[in-house]
Amino acid sequence: MQEFVFHNPTKIIFGEGKISELGAEAKTYGKKALLVYGMGSVKSNGVYDQTVASLTEAGVEIVEFGGVKSNPMMSYARKGVELAKSEQVDMVVAVGGGSVIDTSKSIAAGAVTDTDILEFFVFTSNVETALPLLAVLTIPAAGSEMNGGMVLTRDDTLDKLGTCNYAPLYPKVSILDPTVTYSIPASYTAFSAADAMSHLLEGYFTQTDEWSPIQDRYVEGLCKSIMEAADKALADPNDFQGRSTLMWAATMAFNDLSSTGIGPFCFPNHMLEHLLSAIYDIAHGGGLSIVMLAWMKYASEHGNARIAKFARNVFDIQAGDDVSAAADGIEAFRAWLKKSGSYTCFADAGIPESGIEKITERTVALANLWGLDAYNTENISEIYRMCGPFKGE
Amino acid sequence: MQEFVFHNPTKIIFGEGKISELGAEAKTYGKKALLVYGMGSVKSNGVYDQTVASLTEAGVEIVEFGGVKSNPMMSYARKGVELAKSEQVDMVVAVGGGSVIDTSKSIAAGAVTDTDILEFFVFTSNVETALPLLAVLTIPAAGSEMNGGMVLTRDDTLDKLGTCNYAPLYPKVSILDPTVTYSIPASYTAFSAADAMSHLLEGYFTQTDEWSPIQDRYVEGLCKSIMEAADKALADPNDFQGRSTLMWAATMAFNDLSSTGIGPFCFPNHMLEHLLSAIYDIAHGGGLSIVMLAWMKYASEHGNARIAKFARNVFDIQAGDDVSAAADGIEAFRAWLKKSGSYTCFADAGIPESGIEKITERTVALANLWGLDAYNTENISEIYRMCGPFKGE
Repeated sequence: MQEFVFHNPTKIIFGEGKISELGAEAKTYGKKALLVYGMGSVKSNGVYDQTVASLTEAGVEIVEFGGVKSNPMMSYARKGVELAKSEQVDMVVAVGGGSVIDTSKSIAAGAVTDTDILEFFVFTSNVETALPLLAVLTIPAAGSEMNGGMVLTRDDTLDKLGTCNYAPLYPKVSILDPTVTYSIPASYTAFSAADAMSHLLEGYFTQTDEWSPIQDRYVEGLCKSIMEAADKALADPNDFQGRSTLMWAATMAFNDLSSTGIGPFCFPNHMLEHLLSAIYDIAHGGGLSIVMLAWMKYASEHGNARIAKFARNVFDIQAGDDVSAAADGIEAFRAWLKKSGSYTCFADAGIPESGIEKITERTVALANLWGLDAYNTENISEIYRMCGPFKGE
Repeated sequence: MQEFVFHNPTKIIFGEGKISELGAEAKTYGKKALLVYGMGSVKSNGVYDQTVASLTEAGVEIVEFGGVKSNPMMSYARKGVELAKSEQVDMVVAVGGGSVIDTSKSIAAGAVTDTDILEFFVFTSNVETALPLLAVLTIPAAGSEMNGGMVLTRDDTLDKLGTCNYAPLYPKVSILDPTVTYSIPASYTAFSAADAMSHLLEGYFTQTDEWSPIQDRYVEGLCKSIMEAADKALADPNDFQGRSTLMWAATMAFNDLSSTGIGPFCFPNHMLEHLLSAIYDIAHGGGLSIVMLAWMKYASEHGNARIAKFARNVFDIQAGDDVSAAADGIEAFRAWLKKSGSYTCFADAGIPESGIEKITERTVALANLWGLDAYNTENISEIYRMCGPFKGE
């Protein structure tokens, strides 16, 4: 273990029917809320009505800001910042998944400053303060409901940029009702499971610690639970236990606990994925499924022994040396991802081999921004070429 | 999984030399601190000097309140309350283990009210507010550095009373420097490991949830890590990795995470232990070692299938039915506790068989206070009789 600071003040209210408690929480932060949501699914599944009813009953005035898309754009978040400022709201209430919560975070940060929100993503400004943020989670995957990070896509370049954890952006309260996830389609259930696992595995695979049994078992245990829970939810979309476990595991996967004390680590799979979903507008979790399989193979063949550890402890691979154990583990992971309905190759996501050059060029720029010095045009394109078969093959 | 609320706002600062950051944290809460500590070990190991230096450098005035004993008494905490009131301190700084932190919590709660602190322990009053509390942890075991509970012994009856989590009593900041635990004697290292495991196992063994893979693996993983880390720390008291892992695992064991969503659960082993350490003044963790072994056997033989689950998943017991697997697991646990130097029977703790009657009588009263309806004179004395051999045998 190495030194760390852990401080996660988000209050989680978990359980069926708990959206009704939102208003009582919200009114402690003020009287007027910007209500941020997406493209309308919260209206068809009843979550919007529950949210509005609870806020209204508590006397919290609502200013609506719907229409956030998946892989959300910075330009749209800026409109939210303008609305929050002109309406002088006291707080932001996010109702949705990671795209909505991340957009809401950037609005909460942007509403109290004249700094353009882009600066928080390129690290030329720090988020020193923000409006209070409350969230009603509808898609368990991103983990944004219990951390201080956010990801938005820059309009002019289509670069998908992620921040570090900003202390003011941890939601004050996040409400997790597993029953609102019953209506998530099978494909997005699978993508979400892969997304949550990726948040655990980035640190697990790239950490620099000499001995971390707490964190290793935390990650391995959550990965197994996510796969078991996804199996239940895919077999029966209304399986309360499967949906509950998937929801809490996705939050636990990215609430800073898995990385306590593991030392410096990085996000190579997110680096490799971000341009896929930015350029091809695919589901982030689906893109991660593809690049994780390729990156794990590349990393194992370049001396990363932790791929084999994952294979042994999560997939019970018994084989001898690290590279062969890792290869067996990657195939077991591929089989599970395929069975779940996630993507395992560029063809699944509609990406042609001819796209690699452009994706590589832009990913190299992201590697530079994030300081991932080990990555360059050669090995990035090599990993993408391992993501076949491709569209049209 | 079942519904839950999780809200743990304690900031953890972990690492060698981090006590120097205390002053900067403390001064955000005021200018005058009650400094609570124990019987002097913090003076011999340098922790006191580091704490005073950091507070002084930050301009925080110190009012001293040393002399807290292990198994701390309510009467002594009341003296601290009076001192905090008369000196009008802004905060309480605890430097020590669970006894010191729990005493500090009761002072922080008592200093802002005219209610006697006993009322917080017998649930006739609620802790609605408290002075800010900061902690420098020296003995990883109790978990009090990252939760809102406290345990004190009532002077008139010697009952050792524990509270629920009171929101105002979560420390604002806890500093965990593993190197300050190098000087913990081997016996207390073993007791502390058992204590931390007990906090995980109470919920694991007594929970009422139908499916809880996240929480089960969390507990099983931490138990394995605690034993591995204790082995390292016992082999070499200055093993940084062993001490670090033991310290963080003990905190993670009782910070509310292991019980998220597992439904109602109870603390039978703490109920059985509290009178042992109150009457015989033994180490709490040592007492827990003894009663856990007996209670696990009793519970397994009375239909608790989770003892077998623990045996299989933590000690890799392969045997067939639940009762025999549990029995093998209990023996493996006993062997580990014995090897570590903890207690495994009443004789180890100097408790004669003749003491059982009095302990039972008082434990029955505690069972009533805590609402543990399944326990009565007959089965409580039966479990204590399973704790032999006894002193003098």
